[in-house]
Amino acid sequence: MSEKQQTALSPKRDQDFPEWYQQVVRAADLAENSEVRGCMVIKPWGYALWERMQGVLDGMFKATGHRNAYFPLFIPLSYLEKEAAHVEGFAKECAVVTHHRLESKDGKLVPAGVLSEPLVVRPTSETIIGAAYARWVKSWRDLPILLNQWANVVRWEMRPRVFLRTAEFLWQEGHTAHETQEEAEEETMKMLRVYETFARDYLAVPVLTGEKSEGERFPGAVKTYCIEAMVQDRKAIQAGTSHFLGQNFSKASGIQYQSREGKLEHAWTTSWGVSTRLIGTLIMMHSDDDGLVVPPRIASTHVVIVPITPKEESRAAVLEAVNHLASSLRAINFHGIPIGVELDARDLGGGIKNWEWIKKGVPIRIEIGPRDLAQGTAAMARRDRGPKEKEFVPVDGIPGTIAGILDEIQEGLLLRATKFRETHTRKIDSLEEFKKFFTPQNREKPEIHGGFALAHWNGSKEVEDQVKDELKVTIRCIPFEDSPEPGVCLFTGEPSRQRVVWAKSY
Amino acid sequence: MSEKQQTALSPKRDQDFPEWYQQVVRAADLAENSEVRGCMVIKPWGYALWERMQGVLDGMFKATGHRNAYFPLFIPLSYLEKEAAHVEGFAKECAVVTHHRLESKDGKLVPAGVLSEPLVVRPTSETIIGAAYARWVKSWRDLPILLNQWANVVRWEMRPRVFLRTAEFLWQEGHTAHETQEEAEEETMKMLRVYETFARDYLAVPVLTGEKSEGERFPGAVKTYCIEAMVQDRKAIQAGTSHFLGQNFSKASGIQYQSREGKLEHAWTTSWGVSTRLIGTLIMMHSDDDGLVVPPRIASTHVVIVPITPKEESRAAVLEAVNHLASSLRAINFHGIPIGVELDARDLGGGIKNWEWIKKGVPIRIEIGPRDLAQGTAAMARRDRGPKEKEFVPVDGIPGTIAGILDEIQEGLLLRATKFRETHTRKIDSLEEFKKFFTPQNREKPEIHGGFALAHWNGSKEVEDQVKDELKVTIRCIPFEDSPEPGVCLFTGEPSRQRVVWAKSY
Repeated sequence: MSEKQQTALSPKRDQDFPEWYQQVVRAADLAENSEVRGCMVIKPWGYALWERMQGVLDGMFKATGHRNAYFPLFIPLSYLEKEAAHVEGFAKECAVVTHHRLESKDGKLVPAGVLSEPLVVRPTSETIIGAAYARWVKSWRDLPILLNQWANVVRWEMRPRVFLRTAEFLWQEGHTAHETQEEAEEETMKMLRVYETFARDYLAVPVLTGEKSEGERFPGAVKTYCIEAMVQDRKAIQAGTSHFLGQNFSKASGIQYQSREGKLEHAWTTSWGVSTRLIGTLIMMHSDDDGLVVPPRIASTHVVIVPITPKEESRAAVLEAVNHLASSLRAINFHGIPIGVELDARDLGGGIKNWEWIKKGVPIRIEIGPRDLAQGTAAMARRDRGPKEKEFVPVDGIPGTIAGILDEIQEGLLLRATKFRETHTRKIDSLEEFKKFFTPQNREKPEIHGGFALAHWNGSKEVEDQVKDELKVTIRCIPFEDSPEPGVCLFTGEPSRQRVVWAKSY
Repeated sequence: MSEKQQTALSPKRDQDFPEWYQQVVRAADLAENSEVRGCMVIKPWGYALWERMQGVLDGMFKATGHRNAYFPLFIPLSYLEKEAAHVEGFAKECAVVTHHRLESKDGKLVPAGVLSEPLVVRPTSETIIGAAYARWVKSWRDLPILLNQWANVVRWEMRPRVFLRTAEFLWQEGHTAHETQEEAEEETMKMLRVYETFARDYLAVPVLTGEKSEGERFPGAVKTYCIEAMVQDRKAIQAGTSHFLGQNFSKASGIQYQSREGKLEHAWTTSWGVSTRLIGTLIMMHSDDDGLVVPPRIASTHVVIVPITPKEESRAAVLEAVNHLASSLRAINFHGIPIGVELDARDLGGGIKNWEWIKKGVPIRIEIGPRDLAQGTAAMARRDRGPKEKEFVPVDGIPGTIAGILDEIQEGLLLRATKFRETHTRKIDSLEEFKKFFTPQNREKPEIHGGFALAHWNGSKEVEDQVKDELKVTIRCIPFEDSPEPGVCLFTGEPSRQRVVWAKSY
């Protein structure tokens, strides 16, 4: 597409990526900031994406033996204090409830009813769920416990950004307790693979998997595994994490069981989660200068049909035809759900409606007017192609071909994203090259530079911290390697076990 | 069942209803109190009920044109102040966030980062959603807005009781805005009918519908409609409400639109909700002295199969047979979802397992042992019959008959509940009889008395308040009557338009 060709959004991705992101969110009507600082309103089109993600993930969790439960929103202050690293990580950014009543005073409401112990709005639920597991677990027979919770959590954010970093967000948090270390480690890895599969097969988001370095580890975890994606400004985004918590939280919460040998042991626990941040990931991964692009397998609306009714006399016939087509398509099962069809018969110009659905990212648009009707054809457009590209197809053939086209779009998006990541991933073996890689080369487009640097590192947190301070670059993950390639640390010249992935990140 | 026959629970319903309720919750492992006052932990078996309720209701909401969205957990104090009646109703029992950080001080965490304006954890979202609608609505073309939110809410409760009255609970809240009063009133009634249908057809809970009196109205509403059920201690429980809010909240929030005539008008709004209280309603409606009874259409586990494997040599054959049966049953669609089957092959005695599933309320239990296998039969037991009643049926016939049996159980539960309500509903025309009706007659069973009294009332709040103070009896609803029967108020002798429903309530 030439620079001069008009796009629905301004600025374009390569002009101002952060502002472009906000424009995609606005143009697709996904969400907006509320008047409560850092808290977003997720609008229906955005929430529909979350509902689909919930539906698919929930099925995957259940298929791997997990059940859902619900634990309190509030955590007593003293619970948070129990795990030292956890306190450090989460206490800084909490919403604290100190009163349980309001009173009128001079016509104003003021907090009243001071709580004897303040309550924290959960930033994550290891401590409150740990307290429950401590009550439930007596014997090895009570293990494993394999639960998941769909919930809202709050982490006070100083620089909120819709979907990516908000004070309140929606997520799921799995919490499991096991008899052995081995079982817990297996669970941690199993759920990482669930996330990887979900991201790839539904979101068309290729992810790297690996372990987090010490500096990026979940506060209180022994090991944090992650799925990490590269979005279109070549930055990394952590899209999901799975934590092996060892016995840290079971010791903090007192989750003890009588072992098969009759000894009192601490359980081994895990936790794992993904959040509405996945929506932000999806947006930055696939959208273009015309707005959102929704991968078909995570869409709830796969097809929009726009009847063109310029003349009153042919209106009824056109509407009948589009209704008939909509019904036929809705009867088709696409990877487990019926094809979602919007029939946009609003009394607005076809162009206006068409652009609205482009900006909303619906995979396939179908227009049918009086002339099409006469010829038995429809104009079909795909969101993964140019906004003006249309193909005239026989209407009767659409139900038979639609699932194939949706699959093709899905595969195309994944392929494009994978190639993009490959193009911007580089093995780097000199500090000079590393620095250059992460420095904007084009003053006009300062956002667009860098990517994933595969570089050697001596394994120390000091180096990590230093690189972060100097270049705002962090280790995104230490990839799982069957035969790691040893080398020399770029920063210290010390031995390195393997290359790790460095990037700027969200 | 004779008084002497042993039951799984103690006390029985007619001995101590409130304690029996707690025992049902415990025996079925539905939920428990957390260490956070008034906040419950909903355990997997209880949460599964909520998930089914969510699934069914969500489908009904979408079928009536609603979409889901999500609004902030926190409400600025100033928003709550906007609607005068609303403040009175909700300000008293709020969780108030005053700080956004914690700091370590002498090894303890203390609240820090004082918020310039305290935030209230939503007790309900009219005000925060109203603020969003005020931003979104400009013209009559932007109306109606038909949204629903699945969320947690917090109302500080002094006497919490699991599912029935908890500080935090889960619910859905629909919020709609309309161009005309007529449309908004129609919406209010439409959603009341959705609740009525859901309660009857899925929960097997027959409900009365009607309008709330002034004293029981939602704070800020013009009219509150409700579904009201009678549970087994003959008390009423409000199971869902639908509010016509008039222009009260649109004036408070500034939801204004340019009308078709070009004038600036305030929108007409509604809100409607049901909560995890429905689980409490379900429990008190159908459970018996052996524990929970789950109506088949709201169950996620419809059938439990218990293999009996006394001898090692026949174990494999029995397990193969039950696995085969489980697969056949899971392939059957029961009112839109696959039949849920638990296969309980744990290494425990058949009796222990059997009683566990009785207490959990699974509609149908099937036992298969070596002798059954030889004869091609299975022992089938229904939760709506005595715990020892079994019927030997041909295994091959089960898949063909199971849906019919589940329907029969469902119908039986609804019928029993309806008859129970009829038996304990009485037209009352003297104050003396009214008082006697609501006074325990049996000192041994003080909980079990009363019911629904249909009595005349002059329409005044003073009378309502007085009866409530004296007898703890309130007006549960003013039934919709096409041809109301006028009469004389029981309490004042003044004219009455129609009989209203009086009861003690949860």
